[in-house]
Amino acid sequence: MVVKVYGPAYGSSKRVLVCLVEKGIDFETVPVDLIKGDLKQPDFLALQPFGVVPVIQDGEYTLYESRAIIRYYAEKYKSQGSDLLGKTIEERGVVEQWVEVEAHNYHPPIYNLTVHILFASKLGFPADEKLIKESEEKIGKVLDIYEERLSKSKYLAGDFFSLADLSHLPFTQRLVSEMGKEYMIRDRKHVSAWWDDISSRPSWNKVKHLQ
Amino acid sequence: MVVKVYGPAYGSSKRVLVCLVEKGIDFETVPVDLIKGDLKQPDFLALQPFGVVPVIQDGEYTLYESRAIIRYYAEKYKSQGSDLLGKTIEERGVVEQWVEVEAHNYHPPIYNLTVHILFASKLGFPADEKLIKESEEKIGKVLDIYEERLSKSKYLAGDFFSLADLSHLPFTQRLVSEMGKEYMIRDRKHVSAWWDDISSRPSWNKVKHLQ
Repeated sequence: MVVKVYGPAYGSSKRVLVCLVEKGIDFETVPVDLIKGDLKQPDFLALQPFGVVPVIQDGEYTLYESRAIIRYYAEKYKSQGSDLLGKTIEERGVVEQWVEVEAHNYHPPIYNLTVHILFASKLGFPADEKLIKESEEKIGKVLDIYEERLSKSKYLAGDFFSLADLSHLPFTQRLVSEMGKEYMIRDRKHVSAWWDDISSRPSWNKVKHLQ
Repeated sequence: MVVKVYGPAYGSSKRVLVCLVEKGIDFETVPVDLIKGDLKQPDFLALQPFGVVPVIQDGEYTLYESRAIIRYYAEKYKSQGSDLLGKTIEERGVVEQWVEVEAHNYHPPIYNLTVHILFASKLGFPADEKLIKESEEKIGKVLDIYEERLSKSKYLAGDFFSLADLSHLPFTQRLVSEMGKEYMIRDRKHVSAWWDDISSRPSWNKVKHLQ
């Protein structure tokens, strides 16, 4: 069964795609265009009532929310490909902790930067410079805590690459490559080494340019 | 081993406490006072570097982020107390989907309401009336989707009470009991029945007034 992934161009969908590659799961992508309004069409809303990507279809099984989807595949294929959840329930707890940190501390400000630096003009509204400044400050504070953490362990959840690191890939790539903010990573020695490590994984290189 | 839970008065900590009661796990609480600055003290920041509750200590094991903690206990004690994750990996996937919906769609606006309606004056800043109005509109749209979902299944993830429902308890209780917004629940027939069901669980009645 090939997993169908909607919206491969978008950051949250790439979180799913890189997980599928890490686990060695075949997939096909269904492009959707947010700007053309594809996400508000009845067919799409029947799959994902909130009108956002990603959503996957795997036979009769439909699932949305990127971090729910990556947990599902990481658990279902635990012993296939990279183990992304840790070896014990305690390790998984720490993985979950750092996935939540990504979701609640890192993602909201980096999402704001993405929208206001990269998409505001395409979406037809003015970039909010105050929000950009505040968001960059928030990301800086989070990265200071990551710097301390990564001085003690190679990856966020311990000495193994996990869903917690993987979840950071898509939007950090945009921060570094598209927003001119690479210094935020490079100014922090351990964050910089961690970024070089996780962003050079073959899985990410396969997924990052998918449209 | 008794689990130590910091900050029992706060909504996100109550998410953890109600889970522990559902699983039949003994705990003790450690009050912290946000307004007095307890969360910014070095001892607390050594446990939780972002300076927020909850955090738990279980012997030598420390974990933070409420939704990571509830996943940890729901999995570790899967067969003890209420099963909060579903019977199959596919059911767990759907539980995770709705936990994520709570975290990303429901929680941010209801948290904004909580801060600006209940805490602004205590924290010494003016309530943002525009944000209150926008947040209420967002919650209404999310509840419309819940109404549709709950017309088809008794609970969010299916016909079983799960972490997805449990995660909604603390802040919805405040919406209903403290913010004068009960009509948002009562105006929606299936949401209203669901709220009566989940909020009358003995676990929640044991936890909701803990300080």
